[in-house]
Amino acid sequence: MAIEPFDVVDLIRTKRDRGVLSTAQIDWMIDAYTRGFIADEQMSAMTMAIFLNGMERGEIRDLTMAMIASGERLDFSGLTRPTTDKHSTGGVGDKITLPLAPLVASFGVAVPQLSGRGLGHTGGTLDKLESIPGWRAALSNEEFYAQLESVGAVVCAAGSGLAPADGKLYSLRDITGTVEAIPLIASSIMSKKIAEGTAALVLDVKFGSGAFLQDPERGRELAETMVRLGTDAGVATRALLTNMNVPLGLTIGNANEVRESVEVLAGGGPADIIELTLALASEMLALAGQPDADVAGALKSGQAMDTWRAMISAQGGDPDAALPQPRESHVVTAERGGVLVDQQALPFGIAAWRLGAGRARKQDPVQHAAGIDLHAKPGDAVVAGQPLFTLHSDDSDRFARALEAVEGAYRIGDEGDEVLTGGPLIADRIG
Amino acid sequence: MAIEPFDVVDLIRTKRDRGVLSTAQIDWMIDAYTRGFIADEQMSAMTMAIFLNGMERGEIRDLTMAMIASGERLDFSGLTRPTTDKHSTGGVGDKITLPLAPLVASFGVAVPQLSGRGLGHTGGTLDKLESIPGWRAALSNEEFYAQLESVGAVVCAAGSGLAPADGKLYSLRDITGTVEAIPLIASSIMSKKIAEGTAALVLDVKFGSGAFLQDPERGRELAETMVRLGTDAGVATRALLTNMNVPLGLTIGNANEVRESVEVLAGGGPADIIELTLALASEMLALAGQPDADVAGALKSGQAMDTWRAMISAQGGDPDAALPQPRESHVVTAERGGVLVDQQALPFGIAAWRLGAGRARKQDPVQHAAGIDLHAKPGDAVVAGQPLFTLHSDDSDRFARALEAVEGAYRIGDEGDEVLTGGPLIADRIG
Repeated sequence: MAIEPFDVVDLIRTKRDRGVLSTAQIDWMIDAYTRGFIADEQMSAMTMAIFLNGMERGEIRDLTMAMIASGERLDFSGLTRPTTDKHSTGGVGDKITLPLAPLVASFGVAVPQLSGRGLGHTGGTLDKLESIPGWRAALSNEEFYAQLESVGAVVCAAGSGLAPADGKLYSLRDITGTVEAIPLIASSIMSKKIAEGTAALVLDVKFGSGAFLQDPERGRELAETMVRLGTDAGVATRALLTNMNVPLGLTIGNANEVRESVEVLAGGGPADIIELTLALASEMLALAGQPDADVAGALKSGQAMDTWRAMISAQGGDPDAALPQPRESHVVTAERGGVLVDQQALPFGIAAWRLGAGRARKQDPVQHAAGIDLHAKPGDAVVAGQPLFTLHSDDSDRFARALEAVEGAYRIGDEGDEVLTGGPLIADRIG
Repeated sequence: MAIEPFDVVDLIRTKRDRGVLSTAQIDWMIDAYTRGFIADEQMSAMTMAIFLNGMERGEIRDLTMAMIASGERLDFSGLTRPTTDKHSTGGVGDKITLPLAPLVASFGVAVPQLSGRGLGHTGGTLDKLESIPGWRAALSNEEFYAQLESVGAVVCAAGSGLAPADGKLYSLRDITGTVEAIPLIASSIMSKKIAEGTAALVLDVKFGSGAFLQDPERGRELAETMVRLGTDAGVATRALLTNMNVPLGLTIGNANEVRESVEVLAGGGPADIIELTLALASEMLALAGQPDADVAGALKSGQAMDTWRAMISAQGGDPDAALPQPRESHVVTAERGGVLVDQQALPFGIAAWRLGAGRARKQDPVQHAAGIDLHAKPGDAVVAGQPLFTLHSDDSDRFARALEAVEGAYRIGDEGDEVLTGGPLIADRIG
């Protein structure tokens, strides 16, 4: 065995004692970890030290580049369309990718959305689309490139070849309480996006009760860190800092989120979903050279819907098929009349997860019809006895624990009471 | 599988976020880790969080008690002799156990010294004694109790039955850069000492360049933490806070440290070894009910030497046998005349380790004749060309790296220059 140039214990001690790791040290560490020469228990001590002591800007860049170097890179230079991508840090009811990818692609742009599955209270885009009969997430490289060129929009599973070090590190962080560290989140997201080879990237960085990071200022720090990483790596990168205190739209789940997305593509749907979809689409198209694209018009005209239908069909799905229906439903009604002043994202996300819309372990299946339909949003007037929200599941014995999760998470107040939304949907634009 | 009452990721997050773990949580965590239900990578994230965020007094007590509960406890109540024990946090040239155990036992006291092997730059008591032909560290429980009753002094290997959780945790800390955390050091040492069942305990807590903890104030904090843990558990506990900036005595190694110990037992030997041996012996005997024991007299009279001979013989060793001699030696002489004003413990400890006196990995053997003989101590006048120290090893190719370690670690100054010893040998007494 070759003599290793560094001792991982020295590197852990350096970070533990608030020191700075060199480029060579980080390169070696990620390479040695990927090859199995650094044990998981050593890397988890390192990630906790990074969590608590942070990393400097240069270290985060080095970590990102080292994770990219651990795997393959895609190359979109053969496409005739310009590429532009979007990434959301994840939230409750966040189905924006579904209307957004076909909307942007309908302007002649390629949108390569390599997506993941849900774990915990935030849903996964692939889980949502899999509620469409016949649709499949796995594509070969040839299918992927062909669909990007012909349809423009592809939402599919990321292969394990991109930044494999990140995959290994993320699994470790998940079981060691080190997920929410900005250097680790930023390098994890950006290593995959840069390796993916997109020319432009718009980040939807969420803050609030239903997001990874609750504090808007930490959300801003994450957004700024990622914009810098992308820009430094030659990817035109912008971020929107968006509010995740309230569930997005009126659906949380899988099939019901597809249904709502199709409503938006048909020119209808909830105002917040439309607002965020249009804002992200405008940013993505501006980076792709179309700053004046009429994105609202493309929703009204059916142009985006045509691309949606082509995108679903290309991956084996039937855009006209009926979506799965839940076996059991449970309606919660308003105890009094007034104004809905509170509806907290995290408890509703947890409730949907407990209903079967999400998974506790990677290998678990999801229930495509499980989830929650909201019948009122914060600020809406309600009358006593009207439905406030409906729980759906294939197992009626899941309702009790879901109801427990949302206890105290919504409140009806009086006309004039403060409505607790935590501010506007789009708080800032960075980059 | 039974439902576990806690989720280890929640516990890691609690400590990560500077929270306090409950008794039930700590009991569960140590039990689950010992049984293999908590993965090493999770426990290493926890230990890094403890390293960086600390533990409250109650948490350290709970951790210690949980580690004791993970294994068996010894019971000395059947002995006619009172038991009193000593533990040193380890240093360079620290052979004090060798003269101390027979000295104290010669007053009719039982001294059950369950010891370890060296790892890194601090030597191990068992490694030193194994340089005596025939001597063996492993004793059965029956042999151990019989020798304690007949001879009084036993130095032997600790079985794996005492605080096995600590053994598992220590191996993990060793490879994850989390050794030097006071809550972890204190609970590690005290769990074994309390499980061992001694009635009284004197701690030699070292600070300075050759110690675990360099800073005297951190040494004091460790000493106070351990004295409190012992006292709370019903063990009469005291600590001496001692200076480890300069090697102890004139020998660093294995066989040479035995030789020096025998000199002390014969009424001679270096002043610092005599001072520390007598101070620790007085504390141990005071806790065992003999505050006025004439410990200096017992060295002069041969009383302690008789017990040493009995102790070595009882474990198969020949106290009259010649000790191993090194194959190669290298003398370093004074470049100029003057006063030796500096002699740093850590570099000399590392040099002895590189010569073969210590081991890099647990499974490595040690060279019994390897090490360093010092011919002058700080404050001694030296003349140009006189020997300052001699390196010993079975491999002459080890000299270069040993010399590299001590480069700049000793200095000859002029009469009147400050002698850098870092203060008196015994800095304070706690408890």
